[in-house]
Amino acid sequence: MNLPGKTVERLSEYRRTLLGCLAEKKNYIFSHDLASRLHITAVQVRRDLMLIGYSSVQRKGYDVKELIETIGSIIDSEVSMNVAIIGMGNFGRAVAGYFKGKRSKLNLVASFDTDTQKIGKVISGVRCYPLSEMEAMIRDMDIRIAIITVPPDYAREIAGEAVRYGIKGILNFTTVPLNVPSWVFLEEYDMITSIEKVAYFVKENVV
Amino acid sequence: MNLPGKTVERLSEYRRTLLGCLAEKKNYIFSHDLASRLHITAVQVRRDLMLIGYSSVQRKGYDVKELIETIGSIIDSEVSMNVAIIGMGNFGRAVAGYFKGKRSKLNLVASFDTDTQKIGKVISGVRCYPLSEMEAMIRDMDIRIAIITVPPDYAREIAGEAVRYGIKGILNFTTVPLNVPSWVFLEEYDMITSIEKVAYFVKENVV
Repeated sequence: MNLPGKTVERLSEYRRTLLGCLAEKKNYIFSHDLASRLHITAVQVRRDLMLIGYSSVQRKGYDVKELIETIGSIIDSEVSMNVAIIGMGNFGRAVAGYFKGKRSKLNLVASFDTDTQKIGKVISGVRCYPLSEMEAMIRDMDIRIAIITVPPDYAREIAGEAVRYGIKGILNFTTVPLNVPSWVFLEEYDMITSIEKVAYFVKENVV
Repeated sequence: MNLPGKTVERLSEYRRTLLGCLAEKKNYIFSHDLASRLHITAVQVRRDLMLIGYSSVQRKGYDVKELIETIGSIIDSEVSMNVAIIGMGNFGRAVAGYFKGKRSKLNLVASFDTDTQKIGKVISGVRCYPLSEMEAMIRDMDIRIAIITVPPDYAREIAGEAVRYGIKGILNFTTVPLNVPSWVFLEEYDMITSIEKVAYFVKENVV
């Protein structure tokens, strides 16, 4: 199914919210309730779920468990996909922490760093390897996704290497925009943009 | 000037890219060059800059220095704005690191945590205070923006407190969606969404 990027983002958010509902022992949810928890419109929710062929049970809303499974069947890969973090500074360790204890089709199987203090150790639940082993590890462990959290000056070089070694998707958390070949999916997030956005709206006081 | 959120995000990205140009001693840039560095269209760049009343010099493109200043005059506040980070785990420290050495109108003036090992220390360039001092500090130092990087179970409570103490903008990096009063600007980022998006497009191989 070829969904737009924004829809995939929302499906991911729906699922996380629905998992929260399950934890609250809430088994059914109306589109407007799901929508308000995510600060979007109920129309948006219904449109997205229609797109993946899901509809609500009359008068009860969506079946939470069923919807979690439906979303999973669409956005998750059927077999597990291996992920690596490149750069185990504070940000890299924060990202690794997010994977801990998650029942997911995404396996964080390795991290890479140049710091000899880190290499060989398990940090935030994942073993750290030297950058020199990146090529062999990506190939041997079939690592498809690289999360890049290296210092900005190394971002381009590291991304280039990861792509040459066979990485198919990159999540770039550095402040440096990357260029990748057309067969690699690139997602970039720069927290400065979010911070400056908040500052702008606080300044303008237009909320 | 009441700009849409997405425009503010792009202006922030333009500025960061332009600062990179200056570092490369590049004094003029064409819209298509700026656009391609950010993986967007030249039309988008021209439309955004027209919106802030900026146009290019004939045949030379945009004056990089001038454009940096123009963007700053629009998105930055005239006086400095104070920021605090709540939660100095790995993510909090990573965020603090981003502020170091930045010449910006945003001052990271405090961080808060419950960990007695951290309290009283300068961590990633910012002093850490106990949560119990948050109320007084937000008031006395006129802290407007809170970046929330606490464990998910504490996110709602902490955000509620920050708002009661006078915070005007929140950047929520936890996995828990927040609710804030209408006078508080809320921006949320959950890295799981980005990771799941990359995984989806790698799986679908539609890049």
